[in-house]
Parts: sequence; C-alpha cells; structure tokens
Amino acid sequence: MNQQRDINAIIEQMTLEEKAGMCSGLDFWHLKGVERLGIPSIMVTDGPHGLRKQNESADHLGLSNSVPATCFPSAAGLASSWNTELIYRVGEALGEECQAENVAVLLGPGANIKRSPLCGRNFEYFSEDPYLSSELAASHIQGVQSQGVGTSLKHFAVNNQEHRRMSTNAIVDERTLREIYLASFEGAVRKAQPWTVMCSYNRVNGAYASENAKLLTDILKDEWGHEGFVVSDWGAVNERDNALAAGLELEMPASNGIGERKVIEAVRNGKLSEAALDRAVARLLRIIFMAVDHNKENATYDAKAHHALAREVAAESMVLLKNEDSVLPLRKESKIAVIGAFAQTPRYQGGGSSHIVPTQLDSPYEELTKLAAKQELMTYAQGYHLDNDAVDEALLAEAKRMAAEADTVVIFAGLPDRYESEGYDRTHLRLPENQDMLIASVTEVSSNVVVVLLNGSPVVMPWIGGVKAVLESYLGGQAAGGAIADLLYGIKNPSGKLAETFPLKLSDNPSYLNFPGEGDRVEYKEGLFVGYRYYEKKEMATLFPFGHGLSYTSFAYSDLKLNRSEIKDTETVQVSVTVTNTGGREGQEIVQLYVRDVASTVIRPDKELKGFAKVSLKPGQSETVTITLGKRAFAYYNVELKDWHVETGEFEIIVGPSSQEPSLVGKLTVHSTVKLKKTYTLNTTIGDILQDPESAALFNELLAKFQQSSGMFSLDENDDHADMMAAMLQYMPLRGLLAFGGAGVSEDAFKQLISDLNK
Amino acid sequence: MNQQRDINAIIEQMTLEEKAGMCSGLDFWHLKGVERLGIPSIMVTDGPHGLRKQNESADHLGLSNSVPATCFPSAAGLASSWNTELIYRVGEALGEECQAENVAVLLGPGANIKRSPLCGRNFEYFSEDPYLSSELAASHIQGVQSQGVGTSLKHFAVNNQEHRRMSTNAIVDERTLREIYLASFEGAVRKAQPWTVMCSYNRVNGAYASENAKLLTDILKDEWGHEGFVVSDWGAVNERDNALAAGLELEMPASNGIGERKVIEAVRNGKLSEAALDRAVARLLRIIFMAVDHNKENATYDAKAHHALAREVAAESMVLLKNEDSVLPLRKESKIAVIGAFAQTPRYQGGGSSHIVPTQLDSPYEELTKLAAKQELMTYAQGYHLDNDAVDEALLAEAKRMAAEADTVVIFAGLPDRYESEGYDRTHLRLPENQDMLIASVTEVSSNVVVVLLNGSPVVMPWIGGVKAVLESYLGGQAAGGAIADLLYGIKNPSGKLAETFPLKLSDNPSYLNFPGEGDRVEYKEGLFVGYRYYEKKEMATLFPFGHGLSYTSFAYSDLKLNRSEIKDTETVQVSVTVTNTGGREGQEIVQLYVRDVASTVIRPDKELKGFAKVSLKPGQSETVTITLGKRAFAYYNVELKDWHVETGEFEIIVGPSSQEPSLVGKLTVHSTVKLKKTYTLNTTIGDILQDPESAALFNELLAKFQQSSGMFSLDENDDHADMMAAMLQYMPLRGLLAFGGAGVSEDAFKQLISDLNK
Repeated sequence: MNQQRDINAIIEQMTLEEKAGMCSGLDFWHLKGVERLGIPSIMVTDGPHGLRKQNESADHLGLSNSVPATCFPSAAGLASSWNTELIYRVGEALGEECQAENVAVLLGPGANIKRSPLCGRNFEYFSEDPYLSSELAASHIQGVQSQGVGTSLKHFAVNNQEHRRMSTNAIVDERTLREIYLASFEGAVRKAQPWTVMCSYNRVNGAYASENAKLLTDILKDEWGHEGFVVSDWGAVNERDNALAAGLELEMPASNGIGERKVIEAVRNGKLSEAALDRAVARLLRIIFMAVDHNKENATYDAKAHHALAREVAAESMVLLKNEDSVLPLRKESKIAVIGAFAQTPRYQGGGSSHIVPTQLDSPYEELTKLAAKQELMTYAQGYHLDNDAVDEALLAEAKRMAAEADTVVIFAGLPDRYESEGYDRTHLRLPENQDMLIASVTEVSSNVVVVLLNGSPVVMPWIGGVKAVLESYLGGQAAGGAIADLLYGIKNPSGKLAETFPLKLSDNPSYLNFPGEGDRVEYKEGLFVGYRYYEKKEMATLFPFGHGLSYTSFAYSDLKLNRSEIKDTETVQVSVTVTNTGGREGQEIVQLYVRDVASTVIRPDKELKGFAKVSLKPGQSETVTITLGKRAFAYYNVELKDWHVETGEFEIIVGPSSQEPSLVGKLTVHSTVKLKKTYTLNTTIGDILQDPESAALFNELLAKFQQSSGMFSLDENDDHADMMAAMLQYMPLRGLLAFGGAGVSEDAFKQLISDLNK
Repeated sequence: MNQQRDINAIIEQMTLEEKAGMCSGLDFWHLKGVERLGIPSIMVTDGPHGLRKQNESADHLGLSNSVPATCFPSAAGLASSWNTELIYRVGEALGEECQAENVAVLLGPGANIKRSPLCGRNFEYFSEDPYLSSELAASHIQGVQSQGVGTSLKHFAVNNQEHRRMSTNAIVDERTLREIYLASFEGAVRKAQPWTVMCSYNRVNGAYASENAKLLTDILKDEWGHEGFVVSDWGAVNERDNALAAGLELEMPASNGIGERKVIEAVRNGKLSEAALDRAVARLLRIIFMAVDHNKENATYDAKAHHALAREVAAESMVLLKNEDSVLPLRKESKIAVIGAFAQTPRYQGGGSSHIVPTQLDSPYEELTKLAAKQELMTYAQGYHLDNDAVDEALLAEAKRMAAEADTVVIFAGLPDRYESEGYDRTHLRLPENQDMLIASVTEVSSNVVVVLLNGSPVVMPWIGGVKAVLESYLGGQAAGGAIADLLYGIKNPSGKLAETFPLKLSDNPSYLNFPGEGDRVEYKEGLFVGYRYYEKKEMATLFPFGHGLSYTSFAYSDLKLNRSEIKDTETVQVSVTVTNTGGREGQEIVQLYVRDVASTVIRPDKELKGFAKVSLKPGQSETVTITLGKRAFAYYNVELKDWHVETGEFEIIVGPSSQEPSLVGKLTVHSTVKLKKTYTLNTTIGDILQDPESAALFNELLAKFQQSSGMFSLDENDDHADMMAAMLQYMPLRGLLAFGGAGVSEDAFKQLISDLNK
C-alpha cells in the first residue's frame, strides 16, 4: 500500500504511443496498462447507488445482466434524507462492494441540478439546490473513497436533460453557471476530492463538455484544485486531441485506436505539446496507482448487513407529504386494503446505466403483512396493469370493492419503468391514467386513503384533495418494501424532506418555456431562478414546497442566535437554534437555514439554502444546532470581478422546518473587504457619480459652472423644481449635459472631469 | 405645393459646414435652415395625443405651459378601441392642429411594446401585442400625415422602461427582437411610411439606439424601406459622427455646435464619407420640403368639433371590465353616490413630454349630473386626497354614509399624476392605499358599487370580488368626463377591449424576474413570451385577459369559413366569420383572429393575434367579417435564414371575442416554398439523418457495414432490442458509432458519408 513511486520517472520511460494509449480505454470498462512498466489495467463500473459490474460476456450497453449488488435508494431518495452521515455510510458500503468485485472506480455520484422535473435521469441526481446537492455528493464520495475506491463525479456539466443529450448546446449565463450548475459540483470537488470527474455529453455555451477547457481546466483543475483525472462519459469525446488539450485525460470506452492515433498525430505535428500529454498521463497514473495501492485482496462484504443498511436508508429517504387526521401510522389492528401492482412488484430503481441486479428484493405487500397484527387484516388488489396505461374496469371494480370493506386503504402508485429512464425525458408529470383513475375511484368509496408513491421525480396529484396521506418513497432500492412497511406502521418515524419542489402543474416549472430547447440548443433563460428560487420570487403556490416533509411527532424552533451581528466577508458567523421535540414520539428533524440579501444591486433569489442539520430527538428533548456561515453564504458570483462577492449590507438568516413554513429570522450585517472598481465615462449617469462622495464633489464643481453658463439644472434646494431636476439628472449620462447645451463648459472640461474621476 | 426640386443640386451647392449643420437642431424645437439656398427652418413638437407646442419663453423641459390643444385619449386608451378608422380621424384632427400652429412634424406615435405594466410611459404606448400596436400606429400616422404634417414613430427601439432609460442596455435575442419589439414598428413603417422615426435613448444589444447601424440602416432603411429621416430622442446622441454613420440623420436638440463639429471633423479626417453625409442631408431636405410644400397658411381648426371627437374617441377607448347583474347602465331615476376626488379632478393624461394644456376639460361629475333625471339624485363625496396616499378617516366616513343612502355608488379611482409619468417606472401595481381602502369600505355598505378607473396602465384590484362593475377609462383625454357619463348611463354602449393583460399580481408578469434589470443591463429573458403569449403558455389565470371587454348587448359568432384548406406560404387565405348582435341594444364588437402553429420545431407562443375587425350591429343584425392572412400570419423569424419562415404543417385559425373566450376554430395547412439547408457533420445525430429519406438511404449503407463489423446497433425488426436500439441511435451523433468501435468501418468512410450527405 501507498508505495512511493516516481511517476515522472515512469513517464520518462514511456513511448509516445504508450502515453497516448493510456488516454483511451482498453475496452468498455478497463483502462489500459503498460505491463513492462508495472502499470496495471484497472476497472471502472457504473452505479452510484449500487454496483453494475457486467459479466464478461455482456454487451456493455446494459441489456444483459450484471453481478448482484446491493441496490440502495437512488439519489433523489438519498437527498431527501438530508443526512450526510447516512449517505457516507452508503458510500462505505458501495466501496466495500467495489473492493469485493475488484472495481477501482465507481462511476458516480451525479450532481446535476434538477432544472426540470421532466429530466429522465433526475432520479440519479440529488436536488434542485446546489448547496444541498454538493454537500450530499461530497458525503457520498467521501464514503466510497474511504474504502480505497474511487468515484466519478458526473456529469460535468450542465447536463440537465436526456433529450438530444449527446448534441444539445446548453446556453447558460456565467452567474447562473457559477451559482447553480457548477456550484453543485464545486462543493463536492473542494470538499471530497473525487478521484475522477466525468464530463457530460452535451455542449456548454458552445463547446462540448469533453473539450471545454474553461470547465475542465480553468475551473475544475485550476480554480477548484481537482487533483484526479477527467473521464469522458461513454462516447462523449468529439475530437480526442482537442479534448486532451482541454483537460480530458481519459476517453472511454476504447475507440478502436482512433483516439490515441489522433493524440499521437497532434503531438507529432505540434498541435499538442508532449508536456500536456505527460501531465495528463501523470494524473492518470496517480489515480491508477492509488487504486492499486488501496486494492484489498480477497475482500468480501456482508450482503445481509448491506440490505439492512439499505432498509434504514430507504426509511430516511422517504417523505411523508401529507397526513391528515393522523391516518398514519396505520394501526396494527386495522383492516387494510393494499391496492396497486407496485405493492407486489415495486419500482425501486431507475432505468439506464444505473440499473443493477439486487442481492435480494423486498415486496412491500409482504413486508406490510409481516407487521400487521394478523395476516387476515390485509387484502390485496392489483388495481392496474404496469405494462400499459389503459384502465381495466374489472381491476378497478375489484379495488373499489376491497377498499370499501377496509378501515384504511393503501394505494401503491408511481411511474413504471417505461416512464422514467436514462436516455429520454418525460413529457408530462402525470401518473399513468389507470393509476390516477384508480386513486380517484377509490376515494369515492373510502375516506381513509393513503397513497404510497414509487417514482424518481415529481408527479402531479389531481386526487390530492381526496386522500388523507401521501408517502413519497422515491426509488427506494431493494429494501424499499421493508422501509415503506416500517414507516406506514410507525416502526420508524418519517424524517425525509423534499430536496425538490413538487409543482402544481408542469407549466409552473421555471424551465417550462425553454425545455428541452429548440433543436440542438437549450437556453437556460430562467437563469438563477431554478426550483424554489423561482416559485418564491414569483409568489407561486406549489403542490409541496422545497424542504417540506412531515413527521409523526412535532418540533418547535426557538432561541435563534448569531454570535455576531456584524462581520467582514472574510470572517464567519455562528448561527445557533434550539429544536425541541414537542410531540409524543422520537423523531428526526431537518433544520434548514436560508440566507436572504435584504437589498442588492444585482438580481438575487429571495432566499437561498446555506446550511442544514438533522437532529434526532426523544419526546420533550431539545438540542441546539450550530451552523457556521462564511463568505459564500452571502456572496453572489460577480461576473466582472470573476469572483464571489458580498455586497456590504444587511442579511436575514432564516431558520425553519422548510422553505415555506414559519421560521425564525436573525439579522446580520456583512461588510465587504473588496472595493469594486468603477470606471467613469461620458456615459456614466450623474446619479451613479453622485453615489460616491468624492466623485460627487468633483462633479459638483463642473455642474456649478454648467448651471452658471446654461441656467439649466439648478439644484438649488429652494427652487420649486429642484426635486424634479434631481430626478431628471439621476438617469442622465454626463454627455447629456453637453447635449443640453453647456455653452460655458467645453467638452474638454468634461473629459478632464472623467480623467479626475477615474484617478 | 409639391414643387419639383432637385435636392441633389441643392446639396451640391452646400458647404460642408452647412451640410453638417443640417444634421443638428437649431434650438430645442427647430431644425436648421439655409436661407441662401431656400431651405427653411421647420418646427417639430411633442405630443402623440395632443399638440405640445411650447411658448417661446418656455424652458423646453415641459415645466412651463404650452399653447392649448385638444387632448385626446392617450395610446393605451386609443388602442382599446381597436378602431383603426377612428384612430385615423384622431390623427387627422392632430394634423389640423399642427397646421394651425405651423408645426411640421408631430413627435409620435409611440409603438413600444408593453413589456412590463410598470413602465412609466405605458400610457403612451398601444399594446403588449406587436400586430395590434403596429396596425394602430399605422392608422395614427396615416391620419396625421393626411394633413400634410409629419409624424415621428418612436422610440426606436426596445425602450420598454424609464428606469435608467438613457444608459440601460436592452439585451434581447434576435427572434424576440424581430417578432415582438421590432414587429410593432415594422408594420407601421411599411404601411404608413412615417416622415420620421425617433431613436430611443437606450442601448440595444450593446449599441446605443442612436448609433445602432443594424437598427437604423440595415433594418429600418434597407429592409423596411423607410424613406424619411431618423431623429434622435432629445439628448440621445452619444458620438455624433458614429450616429450619422449608423443612419441617424438629425440630432436634437441643438448641441451647441458640438455635434456638427464632430461631423465636419469626421468627414475631414476620412472617418465619415461625404457621400454618407450627403445621403443624410438628402433625407432631411426631402422631408423639410415635403413639410413646406404641405404647409397650409392661416390654417385653423374647430376646437369644439375636436372636443366632440375627443368625446367620441374616449367612449370607444374605455373598457367595461366587469358588469355583474347588469348594474350598468345606470338608470336615470336611480339615486347615485359619486365618490372620489377624480370625479371632480379627473386624471386624463400622463406626465412628461406628452403633457399638454387642453382646450377645455370635462368634469365627470358634472357630465353625470347632466344625464341624471334630476340633479338631486346625484351626490358627491371626495373619498380621498389626491396629493398623498394616507387614509383620511373623515372622508372615508362621509363616503360610506353617502354610499349607504344611494341605489348605486360610482367610485372614481385611479393613479394620481405622481404615480405614472415619463421619467420613472412604477414599482408596484396597487392603487394608492387611500383609494383601495375607500373601495373596500364602500363595498361594506353598498352591494351596487361601480368603479371607474382613471389610469394609464393596469392596476391590481384586491376589491374586485366586492364590486359589481368596473369601467377602465384609461387616460381618456379632455372629454373623458363626458365619455364616462355617456357609457355609465348607456347613452353609448361600451365597445373597448383590452390591448394588454391585467395580471392578478405584479409577480405574474413575464418580465418580473428581469425588470428593470441590473445596473445598466436589462435582459429580456422571457423572450417571445410577452403579455398573453406568456400567460397562455404558462396556463396562468389573469385578472382580465388580453382582448377582454364587455358590452351592454351580446354577440354570437358563427360560420367560420376559410376559402382554402391548403395554401403555399406565398399565397393568402380569406377567413370569414359571421357576427350577430344577439342582445337588445346596438353595439360594436371587436372580432379577434389568432393563429396557432399546431406543431413546430421552434418554440412558439400558443397563439398570436393576426387579425381583427370592429363591427357595429343593431339588435338582431348580422355581419360577415373577412380577414385576409398571408405568410407573416404563420411565420416565425428564422435567425439562420435571416428571414420570416413558415414551417409546413397545420395551423389553427381561432376567431372569437377575446384571447380567452370560447372561439371558433378553423384548420389550414400551409406549405413552405423555402427549403432550409441542412449541413451534416460527424456531430449530426443519426435521428436527424434518418428524417430525410435520401440521407437515410446513404446512412443505412454505412450502418450495415458497421453492424457487420461490430455486431452492435442491429436494427433488425425481428430483434427484441430493435426498438431500444433505435431510440439510442436517435440522439447519437455519427461520431458515436466511431467511439463505440466500428472496427470494420474507417473514419474515412464516415467522412465520405458526410460529404455525400452534404451534396
């Protein structure tokens, strides 16, 4: 382990062909090695929430089976736990399984932002909020890498749809890029240093992610300090030599030698420097040897223990969206009608490259039956077909009959596999018609209807008013069935909260007017206003807001304190709040901290998530949570400064149980330590000049002369028109004074003033 | 009149100084003349809805009085008439007044689009819809110019806010620019050929409108064929020589010789060609002589007749927004409480350069009193103060007392002068607090409340549920009082319809997230989705939708017919519909025609206004309206083609009484006569290649070889995976086949394919 090696010395011994060869895969899942130099070939595999190691005979494209592995909840569910420690443990378990299967790098997690709920791959992503997403991705990475296995943070970057994903050009302004789409990666890279980062297929502001030097080199390597290598998504390379120059070290899969030939040619004809190639190989070798050094021979893992972890995690990943009249938890003695094919055949993972073969699989119906006082209390009706959307009247009638006889009805509904997958986006937010119809019909005969949803991203709920409870289980992994049973019967207390907004209708979504774009161009015209940032600013009602989630107990917030009332932007502030379990059951609460810039010269969201914590409390128990905020919590990305910047002024620190529920608010003044340079020209408005006292003094000298010579724009306070004149002047550029006839003041005098102002 | 002159010969006799001199004003309101060459100095004045000719002693900035002139409704009201013939008559009257005052060019109308209801100058603009705006502006121009007086279509272009109007940079994408902001000017220029066009203060995509060659030369002169000259808004010139080169012929006002010195210098040092200066002077002289030739000596006008016209126009300009239980028209025998200071001191025009001194002024209260059966039936209470927003409890109590005793209460409310003016924007949509409070209080004691609104742009109406009727009178000009009385008592039947959407709340507006921008930059990120185009696409409820307006009678639509079911985009279609007055009173109906592109590869609004007509019908009478639609009715602006383009396919022709009410729908297929060129590269997706049968055939040859050599991507229909493979292939670029290992197919074979495809 951790042998000392001189990577530069190894590179010196490599031929150009060997070096270029290292930069493309050996086959679908292996990197190349160089036997004579002791460089081994390592393996990578798909699967952020479970290992997808294909059998040797597989066709690579995911159509055939992979070796069994524990299927954990996908990222949409993991994120709803808001539990970084738990996600770390999932990472550890994944790392163990990789060691057991001799996999060096696990291709995940995904940190793309949920721009639209339609994106077919949203189930693999964490959140619509970059801070939450990056924190959770960091925990995932740290967990996996704690086992000596690498990760690949993906898909870098601005890959927020599957529609034309290999060709579309995502047009996004710099501030939005920095504050939303890159921020989701930035925190994870800085905090967790993933061994690899995977570039996306799409173009970003014109350049393919795979050959986007700004993204791969300037930002990822130089600004954020990423030390590992960048791997292409499978088939994402456009021109191999350009990609290498831009900072893409590894092309996957093997491109039949085309990629390496292009690199060799580029070095030979001087288009690419050999030094650049050497740097790429050094990054590759560093990780390859890191993998080799950390490789645990004959490693195994405890599949049962991992299943138990999967169940624990799944329970924390589910969100109790509604629970009227405390219809949940179910009483063990109640007569329960379980309706819906998903109760027997749950959907527990998404389609595409993350689709794995689980080590075992819980049936929700069976798990519920185990927890009921008597088996006879539990009945089942299929309700609908999974392979098509047509309403089956016979199934509907059976379901209604059964529902009418039960105390409580639990309907399992959600999105079938064909609705949601890597490779294509949804086109609407509805459940299949036969499921919506089932729920609506059952509410006609039962007033105690509980809906359990199995889906990777938000759906609309036209029947919401008629049901008492909704449990969003997302895609809960192989132990989802057990977790659902635990939550429904109150063995466990729901503690998940939404990491994304559930809109009332698709057209409410901020990206709606521009999703999925025109041809190969998608413009992110909603800018910063993604998710709750949009719904809040636009004062729109939602079905369920960001951060929302219920518990079987209740919590109170008190004693919000800031350890300082003023800080410089180079300092930090400690925010503490006391949370008390005011209900009758043990439970966990997710405390959310949002920051609002009270007044800003730039367009900003109403508030942004900048901290969170999850606490477990027994009835009556209190705990004080402390969250530290630094510059980034108050900053926006200043495009001219090319840096994060805080505007001096007042900020509100808003702490509470969700983005929308009544919260505690503290005040803080932050002082900027950076003075923005102002450049004055003849086109600077007079109002802008007057804002700075020194500039104002200089200007007023000239104005006095102007007034004297022209008789216009008197600012004499005793003048009746003084206010109006001041208002006119405010928006007028300096040159306006010239146009309006400053006979006594020459153009040169104005030029002199500008020169003085710029000093 | 119409003397034959050789303008070129005159220019040949002019010195460089004289020519440069012609390109800047003589003073605030006059152009320069050259006495020795018989070039006279002509006068221009402000005022699209009334002449604002300042006294000689005036200070130019509108603070002092101008000569009396008829004040017609401002454009927001005029637009609500949807009556092009009526607006033409207003133009004629304005032209007559100009002749009487020896004014050569009237500085209007304004055709800027109402992007945000907050824009302080919206009262001077027509609509949120470019087609409606351009049609009405054209009528206005034609009317004025029929009298031998010029107009100045303003403010060209993309000047949709007053905030930082002299410095802000409006960033708008090309399609939105063409389809929304320029289209509003284009129709008016092409149809009515205004003598002059006035450039705006702001920048458009980086360049000041005053020196924006693309706008002033490429589009206005070259594409649209404008033959007159462009004048700067007062003080809008940045660098005079650059402006001249860009196509701005006239700088206003006089700039103390600075402007002409710069032009002279630029010609002398070769920066500007003398030929360009000559062309500018030729355009100026052409209009100057046109003015001179059309000048009517000793012209007068009939102020009383113009006042009568103002009353007729005002009545057509007002919109009956709500009329529950037919509370309107008022019965002459009813006891009416008239409440609100505006009833005595109406707001009838906006502030700023359009603010004029009327020849006479109607008091709404007096005019109502004249129409009541007996004067004693009418009482008045002030209700609120106009000079501040504070609630006056005594006034409130008096108003409630009076309201309680009346059969019907008519409350006059609206925006005081200080709320709405050139120079600054509103920051909210509320009425003054004392007015909102008054209305709410009065509804507590009366169930028959009518609200008459006097305001230049939409307000929110928190009290809407408590009042029976709302009459939007806009800024109705000097005869608004009489017109309101005519409408309330049913002397006239309301026939106006909204030319803009009234939103439920400010944040609903599409520009809300980006208005008024950051510093000197405002991005039009809502793109094409302005006004109803946004509310419809986003499926949002409005307070009152675009095109809405009630009548005291009712109308039915029938027999929608298209004279052809298929046309080429070079042909036209005639749409006819029969409108019947199904009520008991004579009335006018505004028939609206919208076009929807059923399927489009580009992002388009749900539907767009492409035709309208106003018909007057006696009870029981029917009339068939025919509207002709040509290419532009179906086209979008294709940025690559740099032209309007129709996609072959089906269109819906939607005809009805408003943008939201049940309508008749016809279908039409339009065939494009333009084939868009497609360029194939290694990055073209396979799906795109397969769309064209010829391209598909070429591709399939190569694919067969690829399949043979790689064994991948079989498209054999009998294969179980055929569908999935086809889906994967659809979004994959050609190069993807290379990356996925086309061992048997060389890169050259792919290059050959591309070369073949591009043939």
